[in-house]
Amino acid sequence: MKSASLARVAETLVGTYLGRDAGRRVLAGRIARGIADRIEAVLWFSDLRSYTRISDSAAPEQIIPFLNDYADAIISAIHERGGDVLKLMGDGILAIFTAEDRGRACHAALAAACDARSAVTAVSRRREAQTLPTTDMYLGLHVGEVFYGNIGSQERLDFTVVGPAVNEVSRISGMCRTLDQPVLVSSAFASAIGEPKSLLVSVGRYALRGVGRPQDLYTLENDGAAFIEEP
Amino acid sequence: MKSASLARVAETLVGTYLGRDAGRRVLAGRIARGIADRIEAVLWFSDLRSYTRISDSAAPEQIIPFLNDYADAIISAIHERGGDVLKLMGDGILAIFTAEDRGRACHAALAAACDARSAVTAVSRRREAQTLPTTDMYLGLHVGEVFYGNIGSQERLDFTVVGPAVNEVSRISGMCRTLDQPVLVSSAFASAIGEPKSLLVSVGRYALRGVGRPQDLYTLENDGAAFIEEP
Repeated sequence: MKSASLARVAETLVGTYLGRDAGRRVLAGRIARGIADRIEAVLWFSDLRSYTRISDSAAPEQIIPFLNDYADAIISAIHERGGDVLKLMGDGILAIFTAEDRGRACHAALAAACDARSAVTAVSRRREAQTLPTTDMYLGLHVGEVFYGNIGSQERLDFTVVGPAVNEVSRISGMCRTLDQPVLVSSAFASAIGEPKSLLVSVGRYALRGVGRPQDLYTLENDGAAFIEEP
Repeated sequence: MKSASLARVAETLVGTYLGRDAGRRVLAGRIARGIADRIEAVLWFSDLRSYTRISDSAAPEQIIPFLNDYADAIISAIHERGGDVLKLMGDGILAIFTAEDRGRACHAALAAACDARSAVTAVSRRREAQTLPTTDMYLGLHVGEVFYGNIGSQERLDFTVVGPAVNEVSRISGMCRTLDQPVLVSSAFASAIGEPKSLLVSVGRYALRGVGRPQDLYTLENDGAAFIEEP
């Protein structure tokens, strides 16, 4: 194989398995462990309602199509709004939206959230018609400073984001189940969205495990109708 | 760059970011979504005690060295006993040990667990002397059938294991915090270990969230002393 086409294969492989931006950074030589950029990003952490129960009770050969159907819907929505999927963890998805402008990144993430919810509903309708197991997405959104780079050992690395904001978004996503809300966003995210306030509604203040400060959490007002009408 | 050396770079990159065996499988052309092998594997799911609290309170520039120090110790222990690290998730590590013989794979995983615990203690001693934050490892071990292959969307894939056994090992690992035990193994794992029974001691039967059957869980008797003496 010529080295130009091999390089293209390497680029596709690394982009597919690491995410587009992380793949580009790794191929550009940012492969030293410990090198990490401090960046501001909107953090997306989603998972699927009752995934453990469903995968425990569904026929084994149904699990991968189930995950792929929903992953496809959610990942496409994230990519179309400029987000980057950093990590798939079973039913979990960690993605980031970076932008010079915090408000614009939050708006892009919220638009992706609405798109993903519609796409997930469409997947569920299609699967229901085939009497296949269905689910919903639980999503936490947050914005903050993270470290973006290589973490791990000399032999095994991960190009990802770490930091308190990443832990927070995972805890916020976990609160969706407790509060039975499809989408929860942090107060930092709600502030960055700015006007119209009618997009978001407070659900109260909660202590998140391991996170020092109790957090005001918000959900989409009227399931995001205002946002969908006025993008 | 010659294509032979570029191929070597691709192999190193893919192995480093996907894990050794998954990297080999992807480069061998197993890159189609939906292709998954049904394999039996010992599943390792570990994380770090109080990671969220530590990363929330430590100086930001300390977080990556903290993660790298402990990841290095744990990943090396897994690799030295023939395990394969599939996924790093912040402080979490998902690894598998595959073998024709279930008992041998369980023994290898338990040996890696003892090595990792010693290595983690050594890291903590070194860090304590430098007045840096320290932690411990929480580890769940299980054995069962999993699907091993590509999951995700057309654009963004993950080469990993999925299935009820993967969810179970993550719940078992989560019980370490509740029961304040450094290592918990499933009854399937305990049965596969066979004699000497003196290696493991029951900690009782527990309901794991989303998992149908309550599980008997076991921990290392005398912190693995019998195992370390008689490998």
